Amino acid sequence: MHQTLLLLPGDGIGPEVVAEVRRVAEILVPDLKFENGLVGGASLDQHSVPLTDATLELARRADAVLLGAVGGPKWINVARDKRPEAGLLALRKGLDVFANLRPAYCFPALVDASSLKRDIIEGLDLMIVRELTGDVYFGEPRGIDTDANGYRRGYDTAVYTHPEIERVTRVAFDIARGRKGRVCSVEKSNVMESGLFWRQEVTLTHAEFGAGVDLSHMYADACAMELVRAPKQFDVILAGNLFGDILSDEAAMLTGSIGMLPSASLGAPGTPGLYEPVHGSAPDIAGQGIANPCAAILSLEMALRWSLDREKAADALYAAVGKALDKGARTRDLGGTLSTREMGDAILAAF
Amino acid sequence: MHQTLLLLPGDGIGPEVVAEVRRVAEILVPDLKFENGLVGGASLDQHSVPLTDATLELARRADAVLLGAVGGPKWINVARDKRPEAGLLALRKGLDVFANLRPAYCFPALVDASSLKRDIIEGLDLMIVRELTGDVYFGEPRGIDTDANGYRRGYDTAVYTHPEIERVTRVAFDIARGRKGRVCSVEKSNVMESGLFWRQEVTLTHAEFGAGVDLSHMYADACAMELVRAPKQFDVILAGNLFGDILSDEAAMLTGSIGMLPSASLGAPGTPGLYEPVHGSAPDIAGQGIANPCAAILSLEMALRWSLDREKAADALYAAVGKALDKGARTRDLGGTLSTREMGDAILAAF
Ligand SMILES: CC(C)[C@H](C(=O)O)[C@@H](O)C(=O)O
Ligand SMILES: CC(C)[C@H](C(=O)O)[C@@H](O)C(=O)O
Repeated sequence: MHQTLLLLPGDGIGPEVVAEVRRVAEILVPDLKFENGLVGGASLDQHSVPLTDATLELARRADAVLLGAVGGPKWINVARDKRPEAGLLALRKGLDVFANLRPAYCFPALVDASSLKRDIIEGLDLMIVRELTGDVYFGEPRGIDTDANGYRRGYDTAVYTHPEIERVTRVAFDIARGRKGRVCSVEKSNVMESGLFWRQEVTLTHAEFGAGVDLSHMYADACAMELVRAPKQFDVILAGNLFGDILSDEAAMLTGSIGMLPSASLGAPGTPGLYEPVHGSAPDIAGQGIANPCAAILSLEMALRWSLDREKAADALYAAVGKALDKGARTRDLGGTLSTREMGDAILAAF
Repeated sequence: MHQTLLLLPGDGIGPEVVAEVRRVAEILVPDLKFENGLVGGASLDQHSVPLTDATLELARRADAVLLGAVGGPKWINVARDKRPEAGLLALRKGLDVFANLRPAYCFPALVDASSLKRDIIEGLDLMIVRELTGDVYFGEPRGIDTDANGYRRGYDTAVYTHPEIERVTRVAFDIARGRKGRVCSVEKSNVMESGLFWRQEVTLTHAEFGAGVDLSHMYADACAMELVRAPKQFDVILAGNLFGDILSDEAAMLTGSIGMLPSASLGAPGTPGLYEPVHGSAPDIAGQGIANPCAAILSLEMALRWSLDREKAADALYAAVGKALDKGARTRDLGGTLSTREMGDAILAAF
């Protein structure tokens, strides 16, 4: 039976970069079957919700889901649960993809694109494992109302349970065992109860399932600092949903361009993974055909590796991107002049 | 009547750097009166609590409070409300110093100490205004217990009320008016209700009190990224307690050494400000006399400016630090060999 990749181009530059993913995938994996769906603003405009049940069902039945990006100024004033972002959160929750893998690495050809000095960044290879279906993103109660003193207030609940922490921690340990074997768990246990609980649970999980893994702990503020000072000290960083969001964006930018970095979101074994570029919908450049398709194409690379069991194709794709960059292929975010399509061509030509 | 500066050296390198503050202050402001108190582990060891009522009372009656640092491995296993950090949080809350000012600037002589390239960092001058007495740091309910499904969990409440947001926003606007007039407010309003409420309230406060201030909004993850990519785009960043904690540490590290940056925490006009270096107690180098006293000395500079109404002495002190650095004075964190005391000497010699 053919494997199925569901493409959800979404909004802004999403459709432009996903078009390049499809071109590359058709050539690299000719037997792959594609499906298409709407998510985010694109779904809202057509179906009045940012994710339909039918699309979620399609995603659940696919082998992997590749999403472009969601959101844009057009939908800034729609009700909260109709926002493009709500579609993405519902998709993550609906697929129960609790482990978000965000690598931060820097292609040799792009070391000079970084804000950081060459010696700080050269050879960087870190993996952030971010919990994706818990924390303040989904915690209840939450709302905007009036408190006992008569003051208007907004509030959210940051919460983690034992099973939520254990399962994502085990993923981080598994990944570390295939790398340098080091996991740094990040929280604010000096201030937050959920942070203290996180640290305790990660420690217990390590005692039970952490054979061969060297575990350390760091406060989130210190980690934000250490990522700037000496990012190569890290192998795997494990964090909750909110800290993982901030730290993975910071780490992504260390490598020079947010246009380069992919992500994978994994659930239980045998369930489809969700693959997305780390960048957003970039409304300012949408529709011009100038977006960098590399992050989306490298998300395909992660899908091949983590969901579709095509390690060799993944290796070939990663190598082709590196080779295209070595030959000087650059979109504008990288200081070049190539269009989205031309960057896709350059990668295809490098196989 | 003489003005009073309460010195709370605290733990780790705190006493070493505060000793230099005192030396400098005695020469620079001969009529200043000093008091001394214990906070953090130092207080816990002596009085079984990390902040006594008597010390808080002393702080309330002072004109300004200068704190070294709190915490260390010695107290890692004491109960949460006895931790050194709890003493610091109680002091902030007790003084109601709701506006934490954290500048990030880079002395010309230290531009090369940064991980970032010269053109990204040279001339950086940004101010982070962090709310300091609300958010998940103090929100209730919080705890570690068992949920309705029988799972162990840890949880916290992230909450902001109208008066809390309005007062710190007005401080940010006031500060911006003495600078380039731009405030960027940071939250996760795409995910959090308290973030959406924050954005709405900041916008309303701007309509009422923001004359002459250019207000923009950014998500916390994007801000973490933009601080690495192009930090000079910012003038004043306004953030809640948790995002402000992370982003101000990141911003501090952009400038090369966490050993250089001071902070001021201000309450209502006429109440004492709390001044602290951004760095922590650094247990790894404590007791060796090698810590960089600049952050603490520059915290005195902020106290002179914001609480003691001694603008000229503040200017002279800032200039002396710059001159000492220009002459090559460097502690080890800056790649030099000077001791804490010798760095103090170099600054005194530069007046
Ligand atoms: C769009 C937004 C809801 C999302 C998040 O905060 O998770 C994004 O920042 C991300 O990291 O994928
Ligand atoms: C020590 C800790 C409680 C504190 C905080 O999180 O506020 C520190 O990180 C800071 O920023 O001053």
